[in-house]
Amino acid sequence: MNRKARWHEKTAFEAAQALQDRSLSAQAYVGACLDQIDARETDVHAFAYIHREGALSRAKALDSGAIQGAMHGLTIGIKDVFDTYDMPTEGGSRVFAGHRPIQDAAVVATLRRAGAVMLGKTITTELATFPTNGTRNPLHLEHTPGGSSSGSAAAVAAHMVSFATGTQTMGSTVRPCGYCGVTGYKPSYNLMPRRGVWPNADSCDTVGLVARDVRDVAFFAAEMARYPALRLPDDPVALQQAPTVGLCRTHEWERTDPAMRSAFEDCARVLREAGARVQEIVLPEPYKGMLQAHTTVVHFEMSRGFADIIERHADLMRPALLERTLKGLQVSAEQYQQAQTLARQCRQMFGDVLGECDVLLAPAATGEAPRGQDYSGDTSMNQVWTLMHGPAISVTGGYGPHGLPLAMQVVGRIDDDARTLLAAHWVHTHLQAHHARAGH
Amino acid sequence: MNRKARWHEKTAFEAAQALQDRSLSAQAYVGACLDQIDARETDVHAFAYIHREGALSRAKALDSGAIQGAMHGLTIGIKDVFDTYDMPTEGGSRVFAGHRPIQDAAVVATLRRAGAVMLGKTITTELATFPTNGTRNPLHLEHTPGGSSSGSAAAVAAHMVSFATGTQTMGSTVRPCGYCGVTGYKPSYNLMPRRGVWPNADSCDTVGLVARDVRDVAFFAAEMARYPALRLPDDPVALQQAPTVGLCRTHEWERTDPAMRSAFEDCARVLREAGARVQEIVLPEPYKGMLQAHTTVVHFEMSRGFADIIERHADLMRPALLERTLKGLQVSAEQYQQAQTLARQCRQMFGDVLGECDVLLAPAATGEAPRGQDYSGDTSMNQVWTLMHGPAISVTGGYGPHGLPLAMQVVGRIDDDARTLLAAHWVHTHLQAHHARAGH
Repeated sequence: MNRKARWHEKTAFEAAQALQDRSLSAQAYVGACLDQIDARETDVHAFAYIHREGALSRAKALDSGAIQGAMHGLTIGIKDVFDTYDMPTEGGSRVFAGHRPIQDAAVVATLRRAGAVMLGKTITTELATFPTNGTRNPLHLEHTPGGSSSGSAAAVAAHMVSFATGTQTMGSTVRPCGYCGVTGYKPSYNLMPRRGVWPNADSCDTVGLVARDVRDVAFFAAEMARYPALRLPDDPVALQQAPTVGLCRTHEWERTDPAMRSAFEDCARVLREAGARVQEIVLPEPYKGMLQAHTTVVHFEMSRGFADIIERHADLMRPALLERTLKGLQVSAEQYQQAQTLARQCRQMFGDVLGECDVLLAPAATGEAPRGQDYSGDTSMNQVWTLMHGPAISVTGGYGPHGLPLAMQVVGRIDDDARTLLAAHWVHTHLQAHHARAGH
Repeated sequence: MNRKARWHEKTAFEAAQALQDRSLSAQAYVGACLDQIDARETDVHAFAYIHREGALSRAKALDSGAIQGAMHGLTIGIKDVFDTYDMPTEGGSRVFAGHRPIQDAAVVATLRRAGAVMLGKTITTELATFPTNGTRNPLHLEHTPGGSSSGSAAAVAAHMVSFATGTQTMGSTVRPCGYCGVTGYKPSYNLMPRRGVWPNADSCDTVGLVARDVRDVAFFAAEMARYPALRLPDDPVALQQAPTVGLCRTHEWERTDPAMRSAFEDCARVLREAGARVQEIVLPEPYKGMLQAHTTVVHFEMSRGFADIIERHADLMRPALLERTLKGLQVSAEQYQQAQTLARQCRQMFGDVLGECDVLLAPAATGEAPRGQDYSGDTSMNQVWTLMHGPAISVTGGYGPHGLPLAMQVVGRIDDDARTLLAAHWVHTHLQAHHARAGH
């Protein structure tokens, strides 16, 4: 294995250090990532568009100029619902075939400014909803990578890019990342600017981040939000401080499969043994309505948001999506406002629910990534947390019968992203060590 | 005065009834509105683009087909930050000169489906912020119409259109409507879909509505949100029921001018005499920080949202806006999250603050529309309510030294829009009767 091939397998944090001190050139790193795309893309199908020449010339320019920022030379896959001025943006929809936006989404521009290299647009399910567009799980090609950020999760899992952007309205970042064994971070609602990101349901839409591990995703987020304190601290003492973790089986627990339940119990044991204070947290009664409330909110907002597509391009929507959109128009505004009222109540009580806990640990999916390419998986373990508006970060909690990850999520209070990332890092580190001891 | 000239002066609700029973043709109504544009546009400068031929051919098609919906033949001015597939969308910015979107904003598509006729794009301040674009107040051409929805407020006030769309992030719907003596309605956050509306600050951006009076704006909103219960009830008993109104001088009271203060006291008296239960409401201590919190939130989000514009087109931004954008990048994420935390606290206590009140009455501006065209007015009476996320509706509370309106706003609980509109109608009706008695 040559040096060039090795870099793309390292974390972005490691690559960043080498890129910053010029021991690694942007051209070498970008070249390694493009080689990896060549090697795996035929199988994985992560990209809607690969910006090969643009990326190489950008890398060349970076190598011949000053260090531009913390992202200097790192590679990004941009979910194909983020506008980009130099690449098509089609949103996985025939309605937008060949569409060329005139501007960059805000976060894309911010990442470019920090020196990042855009390798291409990653495949999304249709309009970031549920009809899939052919991406496979790099860990097991017969299985879904999840969605809607299918290509972003797959591209990072296949070591094609340092990072990828995602979005989450139902569970579109945390779940696919969980299925693919990478780190998905859904930040607090509104922390990342949405300008240039295609909306689905305004009150839930959140820019998501995909990376190899928690340190990487925190580094990525710090740049994307211009929020330096999201980076993990350098201080090893701070990193080793055990968090107080609330074990939260949620009111959707019966939807999880036995392997997930067993992995969840294992995680509790591992974290306790590693020194975390672990408490059982039962969500209060009103939370029982949150799954339905989220569905109501999303169907109401999304269906009204798709008005122009329904009016002028219904024939280009896949029938299942058109059907769901038309059905969503039947949700009344009264139902919608009741659902929003419940959501606000649950958000208000969340501080008390957590009590002394820094974060909660909950399943991030009902089980392993399902077999097949048509179904992107059950979103019910993600919806409540999306509606809660706080941060959620996927970590691998175990492995299922097909050897695929059983993902948990570390969930925090709204606008408590830095603490949540730090706790997720601790959880991830200790679970990873446990999996390594078990031979994974 | 001929029949054609009269229709555009009536309320949209009256025109709608005539359009529905075909006693008025869409062509006659659209023609009357276009004639009015011809008569006043040179002075008022409300439109960035007039879609004359498109509107006439649309009206002709409506006249020769079945009634298409409740908006059949009514005319709309679309603020130039809403995407339209058949008209340019420039956002009042040189960066987007000549830009042609490929789709309609969701609410535009919904209005078209209901039979509305788009007369054109109304002038916005630059990117819906503060640098003005030449619109004048139709009530007094030497004064500002306010902003950012300058052209929308002016077009409705000048009887050029039945309705216009707006947006509100600071005070961009309620304030200009107040200055121009028309009804501006900022709905609850997220009630109207934002797809295709240019973002400024995601956590505050709200689609706004401009109409002649409260009945009109409620009718317009019911169609735009597909929310029939927003329409005022037909039952006269329900309409005459006096609301309980909280008089709220706000913590920004000292910013209002003497004429506004005096008008506010008059309103209290008029409403009390008309039968309203009127209480004094003092906002709790934490609300003192809300004006600054809103400024912090908007500057943080907007500056990050404009990343691509700053990177690639800074030279095409007006210097004052570029300066504010760069300054906004200095707002730290910690400051931002603290401001959001305060906003959530104040939203949580708002139900208790209102107590038995159906709505609050507060000033909608510090005084009359300022003289001159460069300054769109003081937003400080609007910012807190925008951050509160609930509905706010402008009503004329009196008249100032230049004979221009002194606007109040009727403010409701979040997702309590129907009740707030009903109360605003009652308040508007009784204030209007009072002004009529006083000779206005």
